[in-house]
Amino acid sequence: MADPRFFKNAGPITLARLAEITGATLSAPDAASRPMLDVAPLDVAGAEQLSFIDNIKYRDQFVTTRAGACFAAPVMAGHAPAGLVLLLTETPYKAYALAAQAFYPDQVRGSGEISPRAAIHPTARLGGGVTIEDFAVIGEGVEIGDGSHIGAGATISHAIIGKNTRIYPGCRIGQDGFGFAIDPRGHVKVPQLGRVMIGSHVEIGANTCIDRGAGPDTVIGDGTWIDNLVQIGHNVKVGRGCVIVSQVGISGSTVINDYVVIAGQAGIAGHLHIGKGARIGAQAGVMRDVEPGSDVLGSPAAPIREKMREFAMINRLVKKEKVKLD
Amino acid sequence: MADPRFFKNAGPITLARLAEITGATLSAPDAASRPMLDVAPLDVAGAEQLSFIDNIKYRDQFVTTRAGACFAAPVMAGHAPAGLVLLLTETPYKAYALAAQAFYPDQVRGSGEISPRAAIHPTARLGGGVTIEDFAVIGEGVEIGDGSHIGAGATISHAIIGKNTRIYPGCRIGQDGFGFAIDPRGHVKVPQLGRVMIGSHVEIGANTCIDRGAGPDTVIGDGTWIDNLVQIGHNVKVGRGCVIVSQVGISGSTVINDYVVIAGQAGIAGHLHIGKGARIGAQAGVMRDVEPGSDVLGSPAAPIREKMREFAMINRLVKKEKVKLD
Amino acid sequence: MADPRFFKNAGPITLARLAEITGATLSAPDAASRPMLDVAPLDVAGAEQLSFIDNIKYRDQFVTTRAGACFAAPVMAGHAPAGLVLLLTETPYKAYALAAQAFYPDQVRGSGEISPRAAIHPTARLGGGVTIEDFAVIGEGVEIGDGSHIGAGATISHAIIGKNTRIYPGCRIGQDGFGFAIDPRGHVKVPQLGRVMIGSHVEIGANTCIDRGAGPDTVIGDGTWIDNLVQIGHNVKVGRGCVIVSQVGISGSTVINDYVVIAGQAGIAGHLHIGKGARIGAQAGVMRDVEPGSDVLGSPAAPIREKMREFAMINRLVKKEKVKLD
Repeated sequence: MADPRFFKNAGPITLARLAEITGATLSAPDAASRPMLDVAPLDVAGAEQLSFIDNIKYRDQFVTTRAGACFAAPVMAGHAPAGLVLLLTETPYKAYALAAQAFYPDQVRGSGEISPRAAIHPTARLGGGVTIEDFAVIGEGVEIGDGSHIGAGATISHAIIGKNTRIYPGCRIGQDGFGFAIDPRGHVKVPQLGRVMIGSHVEIGANTCIDRGAGPDTVIGDGTWIDNLVQIGHNVKVGRGCVIVSQVGISGSTVINDYVVIAGQAGIAGHLHIGKGARIGAQAGVMRDVEPGSDVLGSPAAPIREKMREFAMINRLVKKEKVKLD
Repeated sequence: MADPRFFKNAGPITLARLAEITGATLSAPDAASRPMLDVAPLDVAGAEQLSFIDNIKYRDQFVTTRAGACFAAPVMAGHAPAGLVLLLTETPYKAYALAAQAFYPDQVRGSGEISPRAAIHPTARLGGGVTIEDFAVIGEGVEIGDGSHIGAGATISHAIIGKNTRIYPGCRIGQDGFGFAIDPRGHVKVPQLGRVMIGSHVEIGANTCIDRGAGPDTVIGDGTWIDNLVQIGHNVKVGRGCVIVSQVGISGSTVINDYVVIAGQAGIAGHLHIGKGARIGAQAGVMRDVEPGSDVLGSPAAPIREKMREFAMINRLVKKEKVKLD
Repeated sequence: MADPRFFKNAGPITLARLAEITGATLSAPDAASRPMLDVAPLDVAGAEQLSFIDNIKYRDQFVTTRAGACFAAPVMAGHAPAGLVLLLTETPYKAYALAAQAFYPDQVRGSGEISPRAAIHPTARLGGGVTIEDFAVIGEGVEIGDGSHIGAGATISHAIIGKNTRIYPGCRIGQDGFGFAIDPRGHVKVPQLGRVMIGSHVEIGANTCIDRGAGPDTVIGDGTWIDNLVQIGHNVKVGRGCVIVSQVGISGSTVINDYVVIAGQAGIAGHLHIGKGARIGAQAGVMRDVEPGSDVLGSPAAPIREKMREFAMINRLVKKEKVKLD
């Protein structure tokens, strides 16, 4: 499936091993030693490929698949075609993710080599097994942990970063926040004296910007995923396990609690509190605090129920006017 | 006109040659051998400069221009001042573009030199006449076609790119899509095993991000123009001849058919179909499929006629209330 | 306060010197020789630290602060705790900014060294005291003024830039505008023959894009501050002292007059005039000219009073319907 010019396949992997990796249960224990060569979507997978079904709307593809094996919830078992080995689990998509990771171990894992074309300051301290790519610059006093992999495309300063965190090309982490005293004779820059504290298992997408704090720190919690082209202002605190989709903007000093999901192009004003587990809709414009666990959408943003009522009311009025006009 | 420190003018060019390049017809055939030195806007052009009129609202400038020659539609001929040579064409702006290209051949055309400061992997294969700039990195197994020009500012991986395509500085092409299985103990990364397939004659603006597919490929069709700071998610298919303006975001697995125009800051949700030739307004938030040839705007987006009716209805109600309050 | 690994503190500084730098008046002239070691927020500052109060809502912190000295407006003097030395001024935040600058002189000030790893064209002319970092590229004919500091992360071409202007990493200045003649057989590129003219004391945030003019220039006036991930199209003129917040997009040929403030994620259509001192709300979509000094918000944008009336009207109607439904 995957283009071998770009991806190295570590298969074959036996069904027994795949069950072990993913915590799934084999529907046909006697197939345990059967080797799988790859992962593939239901509609194109063949006898030596492993697929998954995670959504009832793909049932037709499931019923007719030629895949050799498939991750599925127990409730789907009755629909499986004859001969398809199931790997039963309540979380088939997560199981697929783990299996795919086994077939295609992380491509960005470094070679452990330090390029002679990198510029490394003599005071920098590098851990064991560190990879440094061509034209990377490691500045004065920088500390790089064991096994880290540093490319040339991002800019990171005034930052302390946890383990197993990935920062994609073009990220700008730790630049000056947008802080100044407005003055008719010329805005006066306020020195930005904080840092960016990034947890472990964080992803920060390409060309995303996270400004350092103005005095307090800017903080990104463990396990939070941030997409491309996101802006995070100074002093913002983002909790654990949040999901922040592309082109979102979060203004200075706002606090995003754990497990918040912010959909694409949403904007959040400064100095707000977004409660734990809240979900903010795409293109929402959040001007007020958001309650834990609530859903908001629209600009200005409001709870989803209010907003839906508003949309319905406007639609009804438009139709009424249309009748009048016709 | 153009600052000679930044642009090299390849003129003079005779009117006969300009007519030939652009397919226009000279209104005064005896002027064929007259040389033009440059292009310029109607209001500042002089006797040795060539201008164009493409819009009736510039008629006053046309009537009084001192330009030596001008691209114009035949319908405008009656308004031309005495002595102005017309290059008659039904597409004056396109003709101007071709003439300007003749005066100012593409500035980014490379020198054909390979910088000794670039890092080129020994397994990379370079075509003839390739230019590689300082500090560019050409990785393992990369293939570069004849006459290509590679700078240092963008990041491209897992991609196959057509001819005469320009990728501007800061682009991030082929990075991981935003794919993971949500899990309370930590989101699980889903390996992104697809590619980015980019056609020919494509433009991709500065700092734009195009993620590679999750399994299927992400595709950009021939002749599509993409502006700066655009986000294109994994598995998105964009057709031929589309125009995607700055800061647009297109979510994963959406299909944009041929000749679609998407105005600035619009967002399109995932898994949608946008029909051929549709036009999507600035800041629109598209949550549903869009019919071929239709115009939509607003967030959530709706057909332009519905949206206009809604705006009119709201305005009317606001005015009515105002009367009541006054 | 500030992490000494990232920031060098130039203190101690006497209160007399701080009063002199900021134009403030000491409430206790006999404290003039007392040294301050650092700046700090009101709630954490200690006896050798200097704070500020700029907003009545922090009065409780002011009343109980343990700071040694504090910038404050004369009207606050009566609330100061015993022993706190005040530096009285009508602009305490600006005074704080100047004091903080004195404790932490600009971190990006260069070493005055030219890296042997930079690529500098032999025709480039460098002023005195210029710093050029590793892997920076200085092209043919480039002129760099005295004391400038050039890093490797941004791309600048076709541009003339004033003094004391800061361009952050990932900026793309002077790239092609999005100019083409639409044609069914392939859009035809219109050569972009203008420049980018940037004034003095300008800030341009990370990953921001400013396209060069199509023929006229793109212009950014003195003292204007632009945040991260902003898009400025070709031929745009931005006046003096403007503030343009993150993720704003300004379409081609629009004129933004002096002292305009544009909040985050707002978009402005092309060929518009935004009057002096106008304020444009976050996520606004501006489709028409904006009067000097006015406030607009919403998409499509309207004067704040109209928009507020519209929001109130919609809220009232929604509530009325709810009553009906209940």
